[in-house]
Amino acid sequence: MRKEWNAVEILRHSRHDWLNKIQLIKGNMALGRYDRVNEIIEEIILESKNEAKLSNLKAPNLASFLMLFNWEDRTLSLEIEVIGDEQDLSLYDDEITSWCRNFLNYVNQAVKPVAENHLILSIQLDEGEVRFIFDFNGIIEDKQEILNFLENELISPTIKILDYEVHNDEMIVTVQILTASEKR
Amino acid sequence: MRKEWNAVEILRHSRHDWLNKIQLIKGNMALGRYDRVNEIIEEIILESKNEAKLSNLKAPNLASFLMLFNWEDRTLSLEIEVIGDEQDLSLYDDEITSWCRNFLNYVNQAVKPVAENHLILSIQLDEGEVRFIFDFNGIIEDKQEILNFLENELISPTIKILDYEVHNDEMIVTVQILTASEKR
Repeated sequence: MRKEWNAVEILRHSRHDWLNKIQLIKGNMALGRYDRVNEIIEEIILESKNEAKLSNLKAPNLASFLMLFNWEDRTLSLEIEVIGDEQDLSLYDDEITSWCRNFLNYVNQAVKPVAENHLILSIQLDEGEVRFIFDFNGIIEDKQEILNFLENELISPTIKILDYEVHNDEMIVTVQILTASEKR
Repeated sequence: MRKEWNAVEILRHSRHDWLNKIQLIKGNMALGRYDRVNEIIEEIILESKNEAKLSNLKAPNLASFLMLFNWEDRTLSLEIEVIGDEQDLSLYDDEITSWCRNFLNYVNQAVKPVAENHLILSIQLDEGEVRFIFDFNGIIEDKQEILNFLENELISPTIKILDYEVHNDEMIVTVQILTASEKR
């Protein structure tokens, strides 16, 4: 189910997330744990840099899908990191977004809902090569559901599943985005 | 000119604003000014409470107009405070928003663009009475522009200008929202 987000709701959720961080700083300030405060600040700045990089890939559907994900889905918490120099993914935005939406939907249905399910999506931008690495930790109740998806996923001109390992408590899936230069 | 905002842009601006606050905390941490850090945290929490209250008035057009204002307009910086118990302003959302948009547009054209123009909008929610108080500090180059608007504004069933004072360096305008209970 997709939700339509308006500005007030986006700002409400965003404010809520940021206030949690501020409260964390406040709590540690009250305890005099200044080193921890500095660490939290660095974590916040790093997380923001990742989101800023994600927003700069010229793939607005992908960026908004991934950034709003944690507000829509409570079964799985998603963390994003973007490594490498920014690239223009505008040509592949729709296809990548739809693949990710589909894949995360399968993962969502396969995991144990009440477990701590954490997924790190690492977007690696190398020269002429873009990879999405999904690194999951948590509890997968239905491995077969995910395997079926990965084995039977229709061949796409843009997305190629390079590698995957699915266990009950962890999973790594590596996907390659075939940009124009790689297709030639 | 109204801008259509998408999720990525809203998150980008919001992240930018929040990061400025984090950088302010970081700077003061580095200088060992822990009291100032605590002050900044309290200011941030207060500002967020005002925005949360504004978002809870069931007037989404008004809330998004006011919260996005500083990202669209660089001539005037707007600060919001909401005092009193939350009320349901849904019936008046369109009319209030359109009046505020119109008024701020006139103010915008009347002030000196490069000056530090600061406007505090205080929304006061008393039982059965809602007031919007606009408190401006800065440089007004064209007082008459604003006076014309305030004197000739069409009579509205919902909005009544109670009081105004317009000077070259400050201005206070008090507007009453006539909610159903007051019209009876």
